Amino acid sequence: MPRLILVRHGQSEWNLANRFTGWWDVGLTDTGVAEAEAAGRLLAEKNMLPTVGFTSFQTRAIKTLNLVLEGCGRLWIPTRKSWRLNERHYGGLTGLDKQQTRDKHGDEQVHIWRRSFDTPPPPIEPGSEFDLSSDPRYAEVEVPASESLKDTIARVLPYYTENIEPTLRGGETVIISAHGNSLRALVKHLSGISDDEITGLEIPTGQPIVYELDDNLAATERYYLSER
Amino acid sequence: MPRLILVRHGQSEWNLANRFTGWWDVGLTDTGVAEAEAAGRLLAEKNMLPTVGFTSFQTRAIKTLNLVLEGCGRLWIPTRKSWRLNERHYGGLTGLDKQQTRDKHGDEQVHIWRRSFDTPPPPIEPGSEFDLSSDPRYAEVEVPASESLKDTIARVLPYYTENIEPTLRGGETVIISAHGNSLRALVKHLSGISDDEITGLEIPTGQPIVYELDDNLAATERYYLSER
Repeated sequence: MPRLILVRHGQSEWNLANRFTGWWDVGLTDTGVAEAEAAGRLLAEKNMLPTVGFTSFQTRAIKTLNLVLEGCGRLWIPTRKSWRLNERHYGGLTGLDKQQTRDKHGDEQVHIWRRSFDTPPPPIEPGSEFDLSSDPRYAEVEVPASESLKDTIARVLPYYTENIEPTLRGGETVIISAHGNSLRALVKHLSGISDDEITGLEIPTGQPIVYELDDNLAATERYYLSER
Repeated sequence: MPRLILVRHGQSEWNLANRFTGWWDVGLTDTGVAEAEAAGRLLAEKNMLPTVGFTSFQTRAIKTLNLVLEGCGRLWIPTRKSWRLNERHYGGLTGLDKQQTRDKHGDEQVHIWRRSFDTPPPPIEPGSEFDLSSDPRYAEVEVPASESLKDTIARVLPYYTENIEPTLRGGETVIISAHGNSLRALVKHLSGISDDEITGLEIPTGQPIVYELDDNLAATERYYLSER
């Protein structure tokens, strides 16, 4: 039966620096690298070996995938990348220190931007330091100015349906290395979580989550691999 | 115009240990990692940025590709892997110490196995320690018992024609991270080198070789990127 393994990338440089990151491309810290390596070793120990990998266009998720695959001896499997698996775009908050943003806009406003289902943060200023619309990696993409979780889901799910589901139907064990919010989109879909609840669901970094799926790709079981 | 960048993986654990490696999957040494990182930095400095990557099924070439792409900020480009870009299969010599093999079989015989165009080494013993025929990575491949350079070329070139040439025709800058003998196959084809001469052509590790190609994918120029 098909299986889906979700892994959220380990600690990034801006997780550590407490800055809003979104689509900005930052690397993993040494801790993040160690988290990814440990996830790979866990897959090997549990004999939960992926046969196809998917990830985003962002270094922290791609490196996590590569380190996980190396850790379980599966660096050779086919892997595909898509901007649709990117983190939520944090708009004008990108690059800002989270505490300074709270000091300036108030806890309540920042909480709404971070945890509302459908309120996007303010749009990014075109041409500003963190504007990625002229980055060659997004040459074929309409880079959003900002995204709510709802917006994120709206671009993640078509990719899941059109690219990942057909792979799963082939009986593959698929691993997706991605981000807090792109993984929320998938967990919401697979576990049928409400709009209100999904915003508060925390997906731990570097912890493989396994979905066992039936022939219709409905989830029959979801568990943390570390708990098996 | 299309461009092709060839990179031979950096020093592997068995390059260092002076053992015949072939299809056996060994990692890079720290030196090999540093070679790959330096190649990535060189691509960035020279603004020779790949848009599509190809590599083998072998860890040392895949890691080299990943490190090169990270070094030039291109980890996000699509990459594809094929066993057809693997190193030449060293048959029954796999795993043997090169000096011990010379002591046992004589310099001349070893020279023939290493440098003949069409004489393969003795076949690998089925079920022996280094027999990869039951490795899941080769589940869909008829693993050879041994390969001459001629045999290697015969499985590399169809992949080049069917998978890499169409990508080049799309105007991409393609990078191939591979092995001494799979790269010889490509250099022989692109530079029109004779059977006799190709066996003695040494391809340096971690040194990007650039082919500038015309619309028919004939080479108009070949150079080491470090010399530009």
